[in-house]
Amino acid sequence: MSDAAACATTRAPEIEFWFDFGSNYSYLSVMRIEALAAARGARICWRPFLLGPVFRGLGFDDSPFVLQKEKGAYVWKDMERQCRKYGIALKRPTTFPRAALLAMRVALLGADREWMAAYCREIMQLNFARDRDIGSLEVVSEALGELGLPAQQIITEAQSDANKLRLREQTAAAARRGIFGAPTFFVGDEMFWGNDRLDDALDYCVSIAPDG
Amino acid sequence: MSDAAACATTRAPEIEFWFDFGSNYSYLSVMRIEALAAARGARICWRPFLLGPVFRGLGFDDSPFVLQKEKGAYVWKDMERQCRKYGIALKRPTTFPRAALLAMRVALLGADREWMAAYCREIMQLNFARDRDIGSLEVVSEALGELGLPAQQIITEAQSDANKLRLREQTAAAARRGIFGAPTFFVGDEMFWGNDRLDDALDYCVSIAPDG
Repeated sequence: MSDAAACATTRAPEIEFWFDFGSNYSYLSVMRIEALAAARGARICWRPFLLGPVFRGLGFDDSPFVLQKEKGAYVWKDMERQCRKYGIALKRPTTFPRAALLAMRVALLGADREWMAAYCREIMQLNFARDRDIGSLEVVSEALGELGLPAQQIITEAQSDANKLRLREQTAAAARRGIFGAPTFFVGDEMFWGNDRLDDALDYCVSIAPDG
Repeated sequence: MSDAAACATTRAPEIEFWFDFGSNYSYLSVMRIEALAAARGARICWRPFLLGPVFRGLGFDDSPFVLQKEKGAYVWKDMERQCRKYGIALKRPTTFPRAALLAMRVALLGADREWMAAYCREIMQLNFARDRDIGSLEVVSEALGELGLPAQQIITEAQSDANKLRLREQTAAAARRGIFGAPTFFVGDEMFWGNDRLDDALDYCVSIAPDG
């Protein structure tokens, strides 16, 4: 199955949304994308991937916001202003970037399920608005429970060898596509990087749709 | 004289615009800022500085768009789309980033003169829309001549030891202020990075103005 195959089943305009729960600018897009896509009749193809291995493949052993202290200092001021502008809560995480392997595996499993958007918002808010350790089994279970989902069953499935492998493969696919940060959006082969390009990506998505 | 003193002479809301002619995203802001600021009654404090020494001070020996090839490839696609969106011409420069020391020295000299905005647009278009060598005496002379200005006289003044020193000092001031890229905007102590934040910076500028 090609990277995009899962999304090519409808005639609705489609946007691929590549993200990592540890990424602060992905937080903004997770909170915004569902309403923006719905307003344009666009379908979201959720593409969780691990940003850490992608950074390492590019020669960086941490987030650029940690490696470059000037940029890092700026980013949190920018986040405060952006969150205020969009009406999104923010409490700077005491650990950044937060590893969230289990939460990411659950996201991969949920990518085509109806609870995906709500689950992603829940995890992101736990990380960036409540400073909870989204890397822990406890917090992921709590997030699923909040949504009325069978946490234990989902987590067992998420931890299966097959699902673990799929997340590694999706991460490798991100690197092959030329992704170097998150969030990244694809509309066909056209790549858009950063929450600042979400609106442009969606506008482009609708403009090239067969029914557009 | 403090870094901001030259701009603190009016009661109009003021935005500091820190830029380098070699910077592609500075190109977008140079082409856009005058109309956007005028629409809000804001005054622009032009702050040319040399991005190269700032990058070197942060440990980078070239533009991140050159050092990171994935990001570099993306940036020119993004520039194409952004220029189309804003109605700005673009021809990818065959040399990037282009050193433009003389052009920058002239910009420093012109920062408080009435021809500054037009001069900056002219130089930027020569670099990013006509692929001319804006590092050369010939092209800087031509740009000044196009504006009906006494090129030789201005260039002589720009090359004075005093003006050369001022550009070094302004570049050092950029680093002290925490600038790590261009364009960067300041409204008071509030820093905004990137052409994507120009509108936010201007909105903020007007919101805190004494007469706002």
